[in-house]
Amino acid sequence: MKKYFAELFGTFWLVFGGCGSAIFAAAFPELGIGFAGVALAFGLTVLTMAYAVGHISGGHFNPAVSFGLWAGGKFSAKELIPYIVSQLVGAILAAGALYFIVSGKAGFDGVGGFAANGYGELSPGGFNITSAFVAEFLLTMFFLLIILGSTNERAPKGFAPIAIGLGLTLIHLISIPITNTSVNPARSMSQALFADGAYLAQSWLFWVAPIAGAIVAGFIHKALFDKE
Amino acid sequence: MKKYFAELFGTFWLVFGGCGSAIFAAAFPELGIGFAGVALAFGLTVLTMAYAVGHISGGHFNPAVSFGLWAGGKFSAKELIPYIVSQLVGAILAAGALYFIVSGKAGFDGVGGFAANGYGELSPGGFNITSAFVAEFLLTMFFLLIILGSTNERAPKGFAPIAIGLGLTLIHLISIPITNTSVNPARSMSQALFADGAYLAQSWLFWVAPIAGAIVAGFIHKALFDKE
Amino acid sequence: MKKYFAELFGTFWLVFGGCGSAIFAAAFPELGIGFAGVALAFGLTVLTMAYAVGHISGGHFNPAVSFGLWAGGKFSAKELIPYIVSQLVGAILAAGALYFIVSGKAGFDGVGGFAANGYGELSPGGFNITSAFVAEFLLTMFFLLIILGSTNERAPKGFAPIAIGLGLTLIHLISIPITNTSVNPARSMSQALFADGAYLAQSWLFWVAPIAGAIVAGFIHKALFDKE
Amino acid sequence: MKKYFAELFGTFWLVFGGCGSAIFAAAFPELGIGFAGVALAFGLTVLTMAYAVGHISGGHFNPAVSFGLWAGGKFSAKELIPYIVSQLVGAILAAGALYFIVSGKAGFDGVGGFAANGYGELSPGGFNITSAFVAEFLLTMFFLLIILGSTNERAPKGFAPIAIGLGLTLIHLISIPITNTSVNPARSMSQALFADGAYLAQSWLFWVAPIAGAIVAGFIHKALFDKE
Repeated sequence: MKKYFAELFGTFWLVFGGCGSAIFAAAFPELGIGFAGVALAFGLTVLTMAYAVGHISGGHFNPAVSFGLWAGGKFSAKELIPYIVSQLVGAILAAGALYFIVSGKAGFDGVGGFAANGYGELSPGGFNITSAFVAEFLLTMFFLLIILGSTNERAPKGFAPIAIGLGLTLIHLISIPITNTSVNPARSMSQALFADGAYLAQSWLFWVAPIAGAIVAGFIHKALFDKE
Repeated sequence: MKKYFAELFGTFWLVFGGCGSAIFAAAFPELGIGFAGVALAFGLTVLTMAYAVGHISGGHFNPAVSFGLWAGGKFSAKELIPYIVSQLVGAILAAGALYFIVSGKAGFDGVGGFAANGYGELSPGGFNITSAFVAEFLLTMFFLLIILGSTNERAPKGFAPIAIGLGLTLIHLISIPITNTSVNPARSMSQALFADGAYLAQSWLFWVAPIAGAIVAGFIHKALFDKE
Repeated sequence: MKKYFAELFGTFWLVFGGCGSAIFAAAFPELGIGFAGVALAFGLTVLTMAYAVGHISGGHFNPAVSFGLWAGGKFSAKELIPYIVSQLVGAILAAGALYFIVSGKAGFDGVGGFAANGYGELSPGGFNITSAFVAEFLLTMFFLLIILGSTNERAPKGFAPIAIGLGLTLIHLISIPITNTSVNPARSMSQALFADGAYLAQSWLFWVAPIAGAIVAGFIHKALFDKE
Repeated sequence: MKKYFAELFGTFWLVFGGCGSAIFAAAFPELGIGFAGVALAFGLTVLTMAYAVGHISGGHFNPAVSFGLWAGGKFSAKELIPYIVSQLVGAILAAGALYFIVSGKAGFDGVGGFAANGYGELSPGGFNITSAFVAEFLLTMFFLLIILGSTNERAPKGFAPIAIGLGLTLIHLISIPITNTSVNPARSMSQALFADGAYLAQSWLFWVAPIAGAIVAGFIHKALFDKE
């Protein structure tokens, strides 16, 4: 049971910290943290919780990561469902907490797009569905190559949370303008449930593309990089 | 005695560096560091002093951290008072040094809000008391989960100051707009004593919410994550 | 063969992430990541893939690095060609992926300069050919001194990807205004092939200056720093 | 001899990277890196070269650091002069290289203040001589406490360059508005020699305050923190 709580707390923190920084701080007048600050926040949620509870659950905090580790032969299929449920519960509780806090802001009149992911008219930079799919696929694929590679027994010990956390920062530095950056179906669902507009109808892409990219990475790692 | 000096110096640095970056550099015309720079500065005060004197005092630099480690069974109750006194002395000395330096700026006419924490009308983004309390509670709770988890014997050795310091950076990336970010009663008191306005009357919240969140985290960690 | 795939994937990620952040996110209205965000992105591509596949190929991802390691006595001459071919293939595939994604942006009408490197009229800050050459030479020379020094057997184990990755961030913080920062012929070629304008005609400099600087660093390291 | 070359190269890199980022990139229109980017650059010069050549020379790159380590009992008095000469040579060569590169920028008409340090009318934020002295004294004192503490035998092994480098980043996040941040007489001299205006006449403060702060830190560390 400990590992499911670890995934729940970790995914709560990923959504609360990553999406929270976007909602509260990104566009603050004059002093706001911008996309770069949000990118740093997302990465640091994973870096911090991977050091805190990674030794308990492996520190996935993301259904696509669980699928990718399964495809790479590092995670049991029978754990997929309980992990993903834990991640979704944590993510949705975090979105609720963010909703509660932001509703206490002077002049609050709805969350708008919250920190939801989207394509086409809901893409921050107006990127179409094909570009969004390719970006989410490739970025999650490389995210898993980083995770599988840096946790490999031949990699230096103890550094994987730095590589993985800052890898997520990097992914956001590239792709917030494209899809607001998902690479994580739990993060996407949690925001789409609260956001105004058609985000929920687009959420399928943020399940399919990240999980597909993650599974491909699992197979690539197993075939090319896992053993000498 | 060494450990009390370590806490005093560490908390001085936390306030001098974190609040100092906010006071001197955040809003510098054109080139200012903004909230993201202040967030980085706060985190780096803890990262640097945790490596420098963490091996002497444990590197709390924060009464809420001392309470949380006590609740988690990692810190002796009889050390709480001397640690907190050391932290408050360090924080207030640092605020004095900041006051002295800023008073030497051309055109100085008072420190205004200094880098004090507040809610309602004193919240940077206009967040009410309930949102402020919930945010401070949750953020300190996760700060302690990071501290207790990353210093756990099963976590990789030597990396905890990175996780903890950058965890504090993350906390600031989220919440400077909400309360100017406390999660640390010593930091809050030191600024409220010098700031113009009603900050001192609000400072109770920045004792109660962080310490409550920290104690809850201590119990959670002990119950769920401490032993296999 | 594994090591050539590692170089291909690593260099793909360097170009996709570094150049991608520049193309998609640097100049996003209000919230863009600016040169500092691009600098962080380039560095994190190397930090992440050096932890992920550095134990397989050494993690060069850059023809100048391969030449510098050869000059420093750490890499076999007969591996130079296959490494550089792998790096070029990865870089050009990444540029193609970036081209595909950006072409799906609303209102797309060509990539302009893409993220290509240039001097004179094609320098972001209007630096002439001599300044561009000296900057690329010196920056690549120090990049290799960092690589050779931090991977030396006397340096702390496991930290080299942090030093090398953040070293590339530093290099970009200095020199994006001068040449858009190359220090990597594969990165430069990949962009020049897709960019509008005279970038391809200038690409010789981004082969000659980085490789010359890298080779000089290899000799300096071997002469001064390698053995006690 | 190797260690003097290590100090020369390291201090060259500190000035070339830190001051170079300020000169070329800080104020670039729209996309400039600002004070936060310069702060990151200074810190990364030390982080990178401390990993690269720290095992050869100890990685001082700064006369105040050499004095502070001497006061702390970690460095021989008879090495002070050759170290400081090596640092000054490296710093001045770097300033020359920066001068050469910036003179190749379109429309160049002098370096103005270069990246020199100053107080009063030459302080970026208009801070007077007393504030400047106190800031430089305290910041260098804490810089040495970080250096002496994180390299202490009881501190985690291998992490000191991270603590020290990011400590220098933190120092710049606080104090660029006050003095343009020195804490390093070699860095200050190298810029004052090329800058227009009265910077050279003010350079005494950037010898006296940093070295005094460093020596006080050396005594504090020896008295309080060095042994159990």
